Amino acid sequence: MVLEVPQVVVNRLPIYYRTLIALEGQGKEVVSSQELGFFLGITPAQIRKDLSYFGRFGKQGRGYNVRRLIEHLRGILGLDRQWSLVLVGVGKLGRAILGYNGFARQGFNVVAAFDKDPEMVGQCIGPLQVQDIAGLSDTLRSISPRIGIVAVPAPDAPEVIDTLVACGIRAILNYAPVEAKAPEGVQMRNIDPVLALQSMTYYLKDRVS
Amino acid sequence: MVLEVPQVVVNRLPIYYRTLIALEGQGKEVVSSQELGFFLGITPAQIRKDLSYFGRFGKQGRGYNVRRLIEHLRGILGLDRQWSLVLVGVGKLGRAILGYNGFARQGFNVVAAFDKDPEMVGQCIGPLQVQDIAGLSDTLRSISPRIGIVAVPAPDAPEVIDTLVACGIRAILNYAPVEAKAPEGVQMRNIDPVLALQSMTYYLKDRVS
Repeated sequence: MVLEVPQVVVNRLPIYYRTLIALEGQGKEVVSSQELGFFLGITPAQIRKDLSYFGRFGKQGRGYNVRRLIEHLRGILGLDRQWSLVLVGVGKLGRAILGYNGFARQGFNVVAAFDKDPEMVGQCIGPLQVQDIAGLSDTLRSISPRIGIVAVPAPDAPEVIDTLVACGIRAILNYAPVEAKAPEGVQMRNIDPVLALQSMTYYLKDRVS
Repeated sequence: MVLEVPQVVVNRLPIYYRTLIALEGQGKEVVSSQELGFFLGITPAQIRKDLSYFGRFGKQGRGYNVRRLIEHLRGILGLDRQWSLVLVGVGKLGRAILGYNGFARQGFNVVAAFDKDPEMVGQCIGPLQVQDIAGLSDTLRSISPRIGIVAVPAPDAPEVIDTLVACGIRAILNYAPVEAKAPEGVQMRNIDPVLALQSMTYYLKDRVS
């Protein structure tokens, strides 16, 4: 029987993964849940509980083997392969996304980019030529990328998301500032700096600077 | 006695706020927790519980007055005023941030921008002239922005964050892909699309496309 893993736990795994990679880079071979917890501001008990969903990695009192835990997390998160992404929206934000080399370095490759602006269509950005959004469905069906990135203005986002989902995309990274509810069976993550700012001003508002 | 509000609740409030603004724009005057829950994919019970931290807004069975709830949330979140921000790092990402009008529209105004690259320093981006990062501390002390945005490469981020905190900044929006633990009393939100992607591939990895 496979236990369903809560999404909050899944969301923490990439953070563990990144921290372990950094520790490995520093030559660390074994790490305790106390140390990991200290780096991350998470209780050691929480870390042990999160990892226990996936088996027994550490020995009581011995800590985790850094390299082995990295390998396990790579497999659990599906980071042991390359992923193809399609980008919709090549405005300022979309171009910053295409210019960011942090995606490809982690195995996330943007293989096609779309825009509805005739001025943008046909332009080359790095190795990609921007395609007309009118051809989105056809291209999606032929190249079957696994993940969609939505970087269009908010009013255009719902339709783009619907098209991506209709073409079989099951994971969407959404930069448009809309609260779009992910359809059943589709993962969606919203990248929204305004919401992040608004959740911080709650704490600032009664402070004197 | 003031109940401490869990951070997960605070993080949801801006999402409620945005959704209510959208509903108001559609002419809606009253909304039930069921309806709000439907739009957001959150249970009505959770919404009622979240809002109950801040008093009694709705009448049992009558729903929430949209405009009044918006006003309350504006006050609770501190969105009834303007906030000044300082940006550190004016590379591709930093320029996309400066070019994004969604911040100012919500009362978040970038009032100064810094970079360490001599080629960038002195350049004008919109109304701002990029300043040398060497002068960061002095400028922070004289203009006292409330929020810092970190958009420098990962290796530079810890030092920049330390400087911001040392100069009295208590809220940081961090785009650098590092797990930096916020110092005591400092709010920090990490905007990190790679972590978001890695938490989605967990769900994709065993699916056939």
